[in-house]
Amino acid sequence: MESRTKGEVDELAPHETLRTVLPGPLNGVVILDLSRVLAGPYCTLLLGELGARVIKVEPPEGDDSRRYGPFRNGASLYFAAVNRGKESIALDLKDAQDRAILDELMGLADVLVENFRPGTMEKLGFGWDELHKRHPHLIYAAASGFGHTGPWSPRPAYDIIVQGMGGIISVTGHKDAEPARIGISIGDLSAGLYTAIGINAALFHREKTGEATKIDISMFDCQLSLMENPAMRYLATQEVPQRLGGRHATISPFAIFEAADAPMIIAAGNDTLFRKLAAALNLPGLADDPRFTTNALRCANFDELKGELEKALMASPAAHWIALLETAGVPAGPINTIADALNHPQVEARHMVVKSEDPVTGTVEMIGNPIKIEPFASAESTARQAAPELGANRDALLAELKQSVASKS
Amino acid sequence: MESRTKGEVDELAPHETLRTVLPGPLNGVVILDLSRVLAGPYCTLLLGELGARVIKVEPPEGDDSRRYGPFRNGASLYFAAVNRGKESIALDLKDAQDRAILDELMGLADVLVENFRPGTMEKLGFGWDELHKRHPHLIYAAASGFGHTGPWSPRPAYDIIVQGMGGIISVTGHKDAEPARIGISIGDLSAGLYTAIGINAALFHREKTGEATKIDISMFDCQLSLMENPAMRYLATQEVPQRLGGRHATISPFAIFEAADAPMIIAAGNDTLFRKLAAALNLPGLADDPRFTTNALRCANFDELKGELEKALMASPAAHWIALLETAGVPAGPINTIADALNHPQVEARHMVVKSEDPVTGTVEMIGNPIKIEPFASAESTARQAAPELGANRDALLAELKQSVASKS
Repeated sequence: MESRTKGEVDELAPHETLRTVLPGPLNGVVILDLSRVLAGPYCTLLLGELGARVIKVEPPEGDDSRRYGPFRNGASLYFAAVNRGKESIALDLKDAQDRAILDELMGLADVLVENFRPGTMEKLGFGWDELHKRHPHLIYAAASGFGHTGPWSPRPAYDIIVQGMGGIISVTGHKDAEPARIGISIGDLSAGLYTAIGINAALFHREKTGEATKIDISMFDCQLSLMENPAMRYLATQEVPQRLGGRHATISPFAIFEAADAPMIIAAGNDTLFRKLAAALNLPGLADDPRFTTNALRCANFDELKGELEKALMASPAAHWIALLETAGVPAGPINTIADALNHPQVEARHMVVKSEDPVTGTVEMIGNPIKIEPFASAESTARQAAPELGANRDALLAELKQSVASKS
Repeated sequence: MESRTKGEVDELAPHETLRTVLPGPLNGVVILDLSRVLAGPYCTLLLGELGARVIKVEPPEGDDSRRYGPFRNGASLYFAAVNRGKESIALDLKDAQDRAILDELMGLADVLVENFRPGTMEKLGFGWDELHKRHPHLIYAAASGFGHTGPWSPRPAYDIIVQGMGGIISVTGHKDAEPARIGISIGDLSAGLYTAIGINAALFHREKTGEATKIDISMFDCQLSLMENPAMRYLATQEVPQRLGGRHATISPFAIFEAADAPMIIAAGNDTLFRKLAAALNLPGLADDPRFTTNALRCANFDELKGELEKALMASPAAHWIALLETAGVPAGPINTIADALNHPQVEARHMVVKSEDPVTGTVEMIGNPIKIEPFASAESTARQAAPELGANRDALLAELKQSVASKS
């Protein structure tokens, strides 16, 4: 698009920013986001909450997650929550003209994020070597199933596949039960988190040295990093970590126990807390019982300890014990449903539910920003801009590109 | 310590760096780490892997996790894995002289990290307002149970308490089983991840604007952010998300199924993949069965779909089906133990197990760095420096402080 004349540019209306970024430490940063569904979009959601501008490039049919429920008035609330505040342009990357637009957008951006299968960007002519030559300022972040190196690199992966491969399912749940998926997409979400750490480190590095870098995140690697404790135990002892139900492997009591009406949690993993716990439950002999005097003994004799504690706990409901243990200075807590969790007073105080007004779906409530940074956090509101309709920002973006070309010529 | 003379400084040996930082985008960054056990230490482990220098300030008795198993030759391998490559100095923060040393160390540091109960730093005279005045360059990152604001701020929290409060336990596992802890410390680890994102964003912001900021991370907020999907579903429909065993709430089939010898995972959540799956399992009528023609129908009729698929899968072992589905282009995978996961060929290729040589414990193997950033990643080795003995770097740090004071005078 080098052939535009000054005249054409002058005819353009001044670029209107349809989106305003949130105040935050990443103000001024532009993210060009080619990612789909969850790992990449969750990463750029967090970066947007920190003040970055996020331009979402979607295929002509839109991000797959626009077709994931629940729906309201035909629109996906799944998509709405993860893509709030982003701009959208639809591009067919098999089309040369659309690829040229993408290339121009790279000139505007500080960071490109994608979660294609490895090799896809190379096929499109946007592999790192090529990109880095053409756009030396551009940081490139790729999140894929197995990363851009190693024998499994070319394979696709999905959240649940990676949950299974990384080992988290093998250490969660009860020994004799069927295995269960972790009830959140921890494979995708964790990849999004590590990618965001890498991007922010790369932004710092570029700001300091001028050098743009490439971030190569593997969902499988991320699962392994989360497994650091069971992995360390396996590597140290060659014993394969098992599913332990409600308890922790090496700290005790730090587990789920049954009270009269419901299960509850007690975390009294050192001798002082254990002594306080025994006193609070009116079990005077417990702390001096030779089976339970040290953390190592309480781990080894956990089933017996659980029996003794539950004998007492079964006399009253969980809420009674949680209040009593709080007074006694022993960490304890409920097993909240999602409804309980969201109705906790801390949620409102910390602005952890935010909302957008969407022309199609009306008011949409979503989880807020967990990364509170002062001085920005004090001024944070719970209002967010809605997720974009597919291609909603195309005209404004093309106008911005024209202006950008003009200002460089 | 303003009263030192030039003469004293001259007598010092030149400062020896006992630790060399890893090459990475955070080279030049100094982290002063007051955090204990896991959330903070895991955060600074990742920052160390990205090239930061981490100075760990421990209480006189050492970080609690030095007393967490497994042990080898009396030393904690739990501590060794999370604190590799860090420097250690023991300070009694109730002692005025040691607090003065801490204050001087802040002059060397770019970022202070702590995971005390809110209010602790204020009591020590190091609250943000005070700190920011005295050390205007210093970024301050706090990770606590419920954050530095809101009615629950003063309360302590532990990983399992936050797991229970945030809702992850309520959506993981089988409907009629006892609830189970997630088998990793996801409450601590996720807080560490969000803290690291915030720190790197703050480093970028300071590099760009000169302003140091305060990061306030709540473990409870972090759990809520991970709950974004079940929370979105609850906020959209007011239906409380339940435990769903092996399946995904809104994508199907994307679940765990029983094969002849073991459970396995199939992720064929769109119509094209489902059609391929039916063909591969030689179930020609399945894709056109009116109960299963769309994702929404496959979610609604999941139990019947599971029955049909398992009728076929029970004929052969999981490995047979995984290989067959791979050939057919249908995502599928095993439920790996931690041993299986660590023996995967991708682990060696990606340097995801690293090791240190420790004078006390010998060779310690640990999980490596999941944040691969080029050009650094290509040169990455699997060698790491061991975790420090308590106070191991005291003399070198005090000498460095003397030199620093001298160079400023």
